[in-house]
Amino acid sequence: MKLRELGEDRLLARLLPALPIHSGVIAGAGDDCAIVDGPKKGNLLVLKTDCLVERIHFKASADPALVGWKAMMRPLSDFAAVSGLPEFALITLIVPATKSLSWVEKLCRGTRRAASRFSVSIVGGETSSATGPTAISVSVAGFVERKRFVTRRGGKPGDPLFVSGRLGGALRGKHLRFMPRIEESRWLTANFRVHAMMDLSDGLGADLPRLAKASKVGFKIDVEQLPLASGATIAGAISDGEDYELLFAVSARDSARLQAIWKRRFPRLALTQIGSLNRRSKIENRKLSSGYVHFQ
Amino acid sequence: MKLRELGEDRLLARLLPALPIHSGVIAGAGDDCAIVDGPKKGNLLVLKTDCLVERIHFKASADPALVGWKAMMRPLSDFAAVSGLPEFALITLIVPATKSLSWVEKLCRGTRRAASRFSVSIVGGETSSATGPTAISVSVAGFVERKRFVTRRGGKPGDPLFVSGRLGGALRGKHLRFMPRIEESRWLTANFRVHAMMDLSDGLGADLPRLAKASKVGFKIDVEQLPLASGATIAGAISDGEDYELLFAVSARDSARLQAIWKRRFPRLALTQIGSLNRRSKIENRKLSSGYVHFQ
Repeated sequence: MKLRELGEDRLLARLLPALPIHSGVIAGAGDDCAIVDGPKKGNLLVLKTDCLVERIHFKASADPALVGWKAMMRPLSDFAAVSGLPEFALITLIVPATKSLSWVEKLCRGTRRAASRFSVSIVGGETSSATGPTAISVSVAGFVERKRFVTRRGGKPGDPLFVSGRLGGALRGKHLRFMPRIEESRWLTANFRVHAMMDLSDGLGADLPRLAKASKVGFKIDVEQLPLASGATIAGAISDGEDYELLFAVSARDSARLQAIWKRRFPRLALTQIGSLNRRSKIENRKLSSGYVHFQ
Repeated sequence: MKLRELGEDRLLARLLPALPIHSGVIAGAGDDCAIVDGPKKGNLLVLKTDCLVERIHFKASADPALVGWKAMMRPLSDFAAVSGLPEFALITLIVPATKSLSWVEKLCRGTRRAASRFSVSIVGGETSSATGPTAISVSVAGFVERKRFVTRRGGKPGDPLFVSGRLGGALRGKHLRFMPRIEESRWLTANFRVHAMMDLSDGLGADLPRLAKASKVGFKIDVEQLPLASGATIAGAISDGEDYELLFAVSARDSARLQAIWKRRFPRLALTQIGSLNRRSKIENRKLSSGYVHFQ
């Protein structure tokens, strides 16, 4: 059945009952606003929005359940970047009326599965018809302890630089199936002083210079040491993008202890020191080409 | 200049410095997530997202500053519906790379002006190119006192029904220039026990049955008493939509006092009793035709 034959009210009647709702939700989808418990005293509110657009971020032929998964997991990866815990999501679905109900239901199933993986409640959203490609926008609210959030800004000269997992080749499949490193990020900030952190979405070559710039430092990496995904090249590890791994800087004196206990805590996820931050130095930074840039 | 020639980083460099930022913002646009002060103790978090799509919600020829205004004010009207105070907004802009920089800058100016009108900080967002029509999605976070929020659910048989302002004919201009009734809604909940409330976006004929259904009551309205906008018909007041006025039910014993002091407090905005809630009665409700329904 096409959405055009169904109408918005009946579409919502199909989609809303299945939404995951956890504690703290006082009014959710179907009300004018979501009304939820705020963060506990001493915690900060964390907000993030992200969108996927057909033909830009996914092919029309992509499995809708994986598109839904990715639409939810992308903003959650940003929560990992700041060491926040996501709690509530709003979903906006802009979809042509010619799309089938079953396509939309599969998309929503993927979104729900992703939300449930991190105990996120879906508390509202918006559907709109459109004359163009499908777009899914997900906004997430959550919290982080006031003494525990991390930005890109705190890196210092001499800090070793680490990445989780393996880089490159994500477009062969990982970009639709990745797992945000929230657990790893929360563990890091519970056990170490993380100076600066971000998630790698545009590729190390685009993202690392952003972290360095925000921290007002330079960097030096050994491209031969980059942890490559199976089949990926060094060039791909630098500029393919969509790795959704953590890039972070800690104090040099934490480096050995971090590597030792990471291996015990996350035996199946690589942790690699790829280089270090240093005083700003334009020459060494030229090695990195830029990643994917929108509108160009 | 077209966005295609500019690239995302340079577009953001143009747009970000002008964003309105108020107190409570620890990390904003340009960081992985927005990190902000949560609601004060005893207050609840309020979340809302809404989107505008070209050709569905506005014409390609519409003034971009007014489109930006509307994109921000629509979710703020939902804050009025629950008597919440908006604080932080995230903006997602999906726009073809062939669009001009000046169009996007005008759109953002309208969005900023609307946000500033209610002291809302714009703390992040997302831009994406697209092959289809422009879409703008705005997500807003704010708060409401735990003892003060209103939903559609608390209406009781016998409650008089009120609307603010005048209904109908919004498509002749008001739909791009409306003012969310946040001030009025906050005043109402500070001074009266509002049983149920919502904002009129799809037209009284579609929205009132939703409020009645959520409250598990029926309703009776006198269509001759509807406050008509200049040039609007009764039919238009019922089904044009996009009025963004408040529809609410209070206790019958508050009715006279409400009407007397509203007139002094908001002398330039009409307040009209349009009918009342009653025990469920299907016959009387048939008078209202339905409003605008998406996907049909």
